[in-house]
Amino acid sequence: MDCALISIGDELLIGQTVNTNAAWLGEQLNLLGYKVVAGVVIPDDENAILNALDELSIKADLIIITGGLGPTKDDITKHTLCDYFDTKLERNLVIEQQIVDYFNSRQLPILQTNKDQALIPSACELLPNSRGTASGMWFEKDKKIFISLPGVPYEMKGIISEIVIPKLLKKSNNDHILIHKTIRTHGMGESFLAEVIKDWEDKLSHDEIKLAYLPSPGIVKLRLSLLGKNQKTINLKLEEHIQYLKKIIPNQIYGYEDDTMEGVVGQLLSEKNETVATAESCTGGAVAKMITSVSGSSAYFEGSIISYSNQIKINQLQVEEKTLNEYGAVSQQVVEQMAIGVRRNLNTEYGLATSGIAGPTGGTAEKPVGTIWIATAGPNGVKSKKLNLGYSRERNIHVTSLSVLNMLRLELLQN
Amino acid sequence: MDCALISIGDELLIGQTVNTNAAWLGEQLNLLGYKVVAGVVIPDDENAILNALDELSIKADLIIITGGLGPTKDDITKHTLCDYFDTKLERNLVIEQQIVDYFNSRQLPILQTNKDQALIPSACELLPNSRGTASGMWFEKDKKIFISLPGVPYEMKGIISEIVIPKLLKKSNNDHILIHKTIRTHGMGESFLAEVIKDWEDKLSHDEIKLAYLPSPGIVKLRLSLLGKNQKTINLKLEEHIQYLKKIIPNQIYGYEDDTMEGVVGQLLSEKNETVATAESCTGGAVAKMITSVSGSSAYFEGSIISYSNQIKINQLQVEEKTLNEYGAVSQQVVEQMAIGVRRNLNTEYGLATSGIAGPTGGTAEKPVGTIWIATAGPNGVKSKKLNLGYSRERNIHVTSLSVLNMLRLELLQN
Repeated sequence: MDCALISIGDELLIGQTVNTNAAWLGEQLNLLGYKVVAGVVIPDDENAILNALDELSIKADLIIITGGLGPTKDDITKHTLCDYFDTKLERNLVIEQQIVDYFNSRQLPILQTNKDQALIPSACELLPNSRGTASGMWFEKDKKIFISLPGVPYEMKGIISEIVIPKLLKKSNNDHILIHKTIRTHGMGESFLAEVIKDWEDKLSHDEIKLAYLPSPGIVKLRLSLLGKNQKTINLKLEEHIQYLKKIIPNQIYGYEDDTMEGVVGQLLSEKNETVATAESCTGGAVAKMITSVSGSSAYFEGSIISYSNQIKINQLQVEEKTLNEYGAVSQQVVEQMAIGVRRNLNTEYGLATSGIAGPTGGTAEKPVGTIWIATAGPNGVKSKKLNLGYSRERNIHVTSLSVLNMLRLELLQN
Repeated sequence: MDCALISIGDELLIGQTVNTNAAWLGEQLNLLGYKVVAGVVIPDDENAILNALDELSIKADLIIITGGLGPTKDDITKHTLCDYFDTKLERNLVIEQQIVDYFNSRQLPILQTNKDQALIPSACELLPNSRGTASGMWFEKDKKIFISLPGVPYEMKGIISEIVIPKLLKKSNNDHILIHKTIRTHGMGESFLAEVIKDWEDKLSHDEIKLAYLPSPGIVKLRLSLLGKNQKTINLKLEEHIQYLKKIIPNQIYGYEDDTMEGVVGQLLSEKNETVATAESCTGGAVAKMITSVSGSSAYFEGSIISYSNQIKINQLQVEEKTLNEYGAVSQQVVEQMAIGVRRNLNTEYGLATSGIAGPTGGTAEKPVGTIWIATAGPNGVKSKKLNLGYSRERNIHVTSLSVLNMLRLELLQN
């Protein structure tokens, strides 16, 4: 099916808002196997809307319109749609009541323009909006489908996911449904990971599962998508492949869907009723910040010593001056003493430590920018690891923080 | 002048890339006083390009095309432009040499497709790309201007800022130029700030200076834009208004253009050759992370005690147990003791401290979520301040970190 997108809104044309709706819709339609042939952005203007509908209905079978449905703006869009589909607005009393309830429950004053969001073209099928007051609309004309949706991304996405996609699948594919699963990995770059899981990827394509690599610094998300008839069968098939992947990269998979590394580690610490503290040099508090970004982290996080200077390493963590002089601050010996020191001084089960050259300057021939040592100290002793990262300070700090938390995660799973 | 934007690229249609180019271009054209009447996104396809050119040249006087000029793709776009403008490709030897030099200097292998980026339609005026290998092109036909640019945002923005805007201004306005200045403020919300600087805003409009409020958590940027003939005169006029604004909100303006709070504070500490340490409870390392995000911060940052638990506040910062019991961890008394403690223990000129209820849970009737105390301790004694923030944990942590750094900034300016 060929699709086209119409985005209505002056704010998009003057660049006040970036058109993320079109990108999101494009991705969803592509996953369904549909082809997006064109996208247009137009002002809140009757002629512009009519022109766009005329032009795009020649090129596409499905036209999705977003925007132009807010309480102050929907007048133009809805009247124009009535013209185009030769129909009239009718007040939908059920929707009107929902709007009144929505405002009352939030103790907000309600205006006539708000109530008028219940005026719906008679010729359309209403697409209820569970997340706001502007209803979506589904029209059909000359075997083409036209869908009009609010421009607020959260509301638009709700109507698409909850109603439009199931309806399109039902219409075109005999009750097919589309299910995504996301696997979160850390510790292998995209190309290296792709090489390691090559055979697994081949097996996916035999089962008609689509795979997308979604890389960000320190993390590669793998998104599996499968279209099928039966939800249970699809889930089972996806789960089977995920279990197989776990055997190939057991240490790299740290979570699924919206899991975060700090959330997963926090969950493990909570379950075991154990605590952690950090001693940070090159990450300068970034590990502590990640841990404490989780609400409730005070149950397992005691605190940190950020020992940016050597003096603080000596005074607050009892790193030996001799070791600092002999091996330098960026060394296995120092990072291990830091982890041991913070565990002892803050009286926790685990101590994490980082020391390295975050960059962009400060490197030497022997220890170039991106040379970073990380360590964990715990009931089973101290472990350390050297990372060889790049030249971006921000990225180095972030990847180091993820890495030391992943080290702790693996420790917690073993004990 | 009415403008239209054509974005070429399959990656835009399937949502792999968000069309930030169109938003940026829309904003620039709007600042120039031009009106963007339409934007279209089309695939790398000859007919789609020809159709878009036909349709949009009816609606607009200036058509800007982005994308479709990479070494593997420019074949279609450039041949189509040659068809449309009835011209032929010619090899530009100067550009070819630049491409060869570009690859040689980076020690990259060069392919024929790379060299073919020097094939330029004869009928166009070449727009040199100082940031990459795909040249921009300027065509005119039937009194309409058509500009074709590479899709890589960094390269596209370079050609627009360096060449296209000056050329458009020269063409339409007799050597006018457009200058922006950004003022960065912290400490007042957008609406409150707008109220405080109302008269100043009126004065701006008398001088035909456009003002944009660009809010983000804890920060409101004010962007002034002025179109005029003489760069020096424009800069003087803008500077005059900025000086006047400084009198109205002296404590809120922390920087200009791309300044950051942590960069400005770091600069002040460096100049005075003074040092800082932080004692963080609710920010959990976020202040230290901000400070150390600046390369070279080791010159003035010694370290931190992240005292998430009360025991760490007592053991590592010598906060009195009695004070904790009497006033609670989130109190003026405790946050002041923390600032004093970290300054003393880490032996720095300044100590910063934070203690509060970051949320989303943990609030009480007396101390609701968002109740946060911050303090500075320094040569001139200890100062503290209470913040009443909202319910978002992430936002509360970020705004608190900005606030305590701004407190230090004001201290440093006074001493």
